[in-house]
Amino acid sequence: MSDHAVSRVDLSRVAQDLGIPVVSFHPYGPGRGKIDPLFVEKTPRRPSRYILVSGMTPTPAGEGKTTTSIGLAMGLSHLGKKSVVTLRQPSMGPVFGIKGGGAGGGRSTVEPSSVLNLHLTGDIHAVAAAHNLLAAAIDNSLHHGNPLDIDPLTVSWSRVVDLNDRALRRVVVGLGGPGFGIPREGRFEIAVASEIMAILALSLSWEDLGKRISRVTFGRTRQGKPLTAADLRVDGAMTALLREALWPNLMQTSEGTPAIIHGSPFANIAHGNSSVLGDRVALATADCVVTEAGFGSDLGGEKFFDIKCRVLGRGPDVAVLVVTARGLRMHGGVGEVRQGRALPPELSRPNLPALREGLANMVRHVGILRQFEVPVVVAINSGEGDSEEEVRAIREAALSCGAFDAVVSTHFLEGGAGAKDLAAAVLAASGDPNGETRPLRPLYPLEMPVDEKIVTIATKIYGAGSVVWSEGAKADLARIAKTEAAAFPVCIAKTWASLSHDPALKNSPSGFAFPIREIRVLSGAGFVLAIAGETQTMPGLPSDPAFARIGLTAEGEIAGIL
Amino acid sequence: MSDHAVSRVDLSRVAQDLGIPVVSFHPYGPGRGKIDPLFVEKTPRRPSRYILVSGMTPTPAGEGKTTTSIGLAMGLSHLGKKSVVTLRQPSMGPVFGIKGGGAGGGRSTVEPSSVLNLHLTGDIHAVAAAHNLLAAAIDNSLHHGNPLDIDPLTVSWSRVVDLNDRALRRVVVGLGGPGFGIPREGRFEIAVASEIMAILALSLSWEDLGKRISRVTFGRTRQGKPLTAADLRVDGAMTALLREALWPNLMQTSEGTPAIIHGSPFANIAHGNSSVLGDRVALATADCVVTEAGFGSDLGGEKFFDIKCRVLGRGPDVAVLVVTARGLRMHGGVGEVRQGRALPPELSRPNLPALREGLANMVRHVGILRQFEVPVVVAINSGEGDSEEEVRAIREAALSCGAFDAVVSTHFLEGGAGAKDLAAAVLAASGDPNGETRPLRPLYPLEMPVDEKIVTIATKIYGAGSVVWSEGAKADLARIAKTEAAAFPVCIAKTWASLSHDPALKNSPSGFAFPIREIRVLSGAGFVLAIAGETQTMPGLPSDPAFARIGLTAEGEIAGIL
Repeated sequence: MSDHAVSRVDLSRVAQDLGIPVVSFHPYGPGRGKIDPLFVEKTPRRPSRYILVSGMTPTPAGEGKTTTSIGLAMGLSHLGKKSVVTLRQPSMGPVFGIKGGGAGGGRSTVEPSSVLNLHLTGDIHAVAAAHNLLAAAIDNSLHHGNPLDIDPLTVSWSRVVDLNDRALRRVVVGLGGPGFGIPREGRFEIAVASEIMAILALSLSWEDLGKRISRVTFGRTRQGKPLTAADLRVDGAMTALLREALWPNLMQTSEGTPAIIHGSPFANIAHGNSSVLGDRVALATADCVVTEAGFGSDLGGEKFFDIKCRVLGRGPDVAVLVVTARGLRMHGGVGEVRQGRALPPELSRPNLPALREGLANMVRHVGILRQFEVPVVVAINSGEGDSEEEVRAIREAALSCGAFDAVVSTHFLEGGAGAKDLAAAVLAASGDPNGETRPLRPLYPLEMPVDEKIVTIATKIYGAGSVVWSEGAKADLARIAKTEAAAFPVCIAKTWASLSHDPALKNSPSGFAFPIREIRVLSGAGFVLAIAGETQTMPGLPSDPAFARIGLTAEGEIAGIL
Repeated sequence: MSDHAVSRVDLSRVAQDLGIPVVSFHPYGPGRGKIDPLFVEKTPRRPSRYILVSGMTPTPAGEGKTTTSIGLAMGLSHLGKKSVVTLRQPSMGPVFGIKGGGAGGGRSTVEPSSVLNLHLTGDIHAVAAAHNLLAAAIDNSLHHGNPLDIDPLTVSWSRVVDLNDRALRRVVVGLGGPGFGIPREGRFEIAVASEIMAILALSLSWEDLGKRISRVTFGRTRQGKPLTAADLRVDGAMTALLREALWPNLMQTSEGTPAIIHGSPFANIAHGNSSVLGDRVALATADCVVTEAGFGSDLGGEKFFDIKCRVLGRGPDVAVLVVTARGLRMHGGVGEVRQGRALPPELSRPNLPALREGLANMVRHVGILRQFEVPVVVAINSGEGDSEEEVRAIREAALSCGAFDAVVSTHFLEGGAGAKDLAAAVLAASGDPNGETRPLRPLYPLEMPVDEKIVTIATKIYGAGSVVWSEGAKADLARIAKTEAAAFPVCIAKTWASLSHDPALKNSPSGFAFPIREIRVLSGAGFVLAIAGETQTMPGLPSDPAFARIGLTAEGEIAGIL
């Protein structure tokens, strides 16, 4: 039973080099540790460059945003900058399902990758336990005479597991007769879709965490009064369960660059960004902080500016848009891409006409990022089948639509050395490192009415011509307008597979009617969730799941996580 | 965000003093670590004394078995012995439910207690993830055309959470129409009732773990062929999830004595003992190893000898039976004790006649332990209301029924100093420390037929007059007789509240007909599970749950876990 894959550098040394006080770093098993962030409050402000990595509308295989974030941080180190990459912790659902792990790839990885992909330090498990404790408290209160007068039909709180488990999407709980609880319809979601995960990623302190959890709303009384975790007196125990989960995790890249891994809110149903606290630690210690937002710039990207940065209190100095020739060819109409299947092989072969057609998607994403008034660097994540003509076409299109630069990056094959050009472009774009930090330019002011916020995002970011409200959504709007949630930012839940709400609309759809089905208030996370069409919060496993390839080798190493 | 409650001694120092090589000890957050047990194979055999702590039939509040185990290990340290206590990890179900934490009490605790009670190093979460991954794989296989021809009505594999959640006892999963899986009845159990937890506690290596998991049986084909995790190709991923969970956890007591915390199988539904691997590490490093078996000697005690010790390859040198005057009074008929309610106050007041009546329960437990040919020391776990006459009566009864000694222990109030007499008696009873280890004397040979094994346990341990088999159990027996499981040891699932199957039969019931409802083969754990009457594997929360008292203080400490 030997240790995991050899770490590049002792992690305590990585923490020390980053300037984390010895007493603030706690090892949590081989290759991983947690950072008590209290020291940041006593650390003088540092002129760090804050670099957002976002992406085009991806293929189901992803366009290498994580790998690019890791490679870029390593490339910046090659240029002599003290760099940190901040990432979300991968959910185990995709690890065992289709997509594989979330530790990067090739020579740009977070190590030990199997630790990152399975459990890490248990934060997602802690989130699931806190979430499910509230669920158990709800059904227990119903069972014991319902003293809060909970209307069971209004209970919106699910249960969660950190796995893809289709059969749990719709369930009936409480069966079995007296002594087995009150039967009612229930549902399970994947743990990273929990509001508790969004809260973890947005909380600034244990006190903030506790307050947010106390406000979590799970349903209403029969008189329509909203009911919270505090009403069930379960908020304290939920907060206690998350005590150490709130400490950001430290790991390192394949070249020994510090990697802060913390929080994993879904990017389609939640705000899709790593934790505010993790970025605070990084910004207090490094010259350059590279952070990745989930899915395209329309999803995690927009939410980075409008939700995460508002809590953090600053915006990024530069945004990197990751594109691949493969992805652009798909938007140009090559191949039939289906979720849960391998990508068609023709996507990996040069196809200049299709790529030219698909560039409209990239142009849209550059435009989205430029609305937030940051310089944009396009990172062309190099693929084996890319032709010179294609790369030239991407560069030209990027520069002519307002990107600061467009650079090929070969970090997958070459590690940080392959990302030096990208790193140089990013530094050039982000301006004077000792100058003022760039002010935050959110898309909308918080005092804008909720319906206008939604219309603003749908039209300016997604390219919708109009927003269509369901009757339920209209009622939701009317209700929310009278509450403090009217001043919350909006998190729109929609597909990642299209700029629109419809996964079939590839490339650069516009003018469509964007449908809002339901609007919920997430009082603890502090945002309004607007749901567009069907959004699945519990993925299923494919017919040939990735778990079948995973196991322990004779030496006790974890193998088979791609 | 400061560190947890001050640790007595730096834990790395505790590990080092115990003789664990530096490279084999991994910190896993403040106050806890894991031990890579590989070094044990290279460590010369050591003449350690192995001390089992078992108990009488308890009240719902428990009679202080954990506290006594901790106090005894500390008492042995006071006498100059290098001691370790090995315990199961507490489930979070009871922590948030009725019973409170499992970290001992008073001045005999494992610290930091809130770490022990919540998450520890995530082993239970890892067990739950592995368990639920198999469940997801089963329903996924049903959904994707059922290539293994699984008969859905034979699926016996549950899902689990580490919480008390009554509403999940009986559920219907797979609702919602096409794309949402195949509807079928399902159930959830508490994670510590999972066969995976039993496997974790019995496995000797990663290889052994992987083999056991591959054999786990979840149901049958429509032709009646048993189906395993290996048939679904999910065993490798399940094993990978448990890679580090198999490493025993190290903590320390309130006086700095090493505490190895590992595994937490239920004692009513599973074998109820801490891990074999944890005890191996302890026996390789300490003079005295104190280990606790769950509930009474009829449950965890019998299974310690017949299941755990067979895997470990040795028996204990001495058994300690924990009794309280309070518990004996209850068996003597004082008060109306109800699960989920506070104990009646009259139980804490001296009552010599009732105690004399209840001593029959202690006598039965001494007799059970003596059947395994070990010397028995009765530990009278001192309570405030105990009278001198009562203590004298306990001592006399213990000595006259064959106990080696009976000693009052005040470790709750005084820590290790209060357990010195108990420690001395235990050393005296366990004989020459440099002599041969006592040979293992199980109750029955493995080649005895399964029905005879069950009859032997029911009559010799529980005091039954006969065993009554359900029709299902008879069919189960006939089926099992033809398989290799016929040579497995038997684990009987029954109530802890009585020596019999009926919780209402207090004190010393005998001659009753013991009903076996169902007999299952746990191929991975390697035992046959015989279920007596109704055994609840998913507890419920009470009307006033313990979670309502738990929270974080302003200083970030976890408060309110009793």
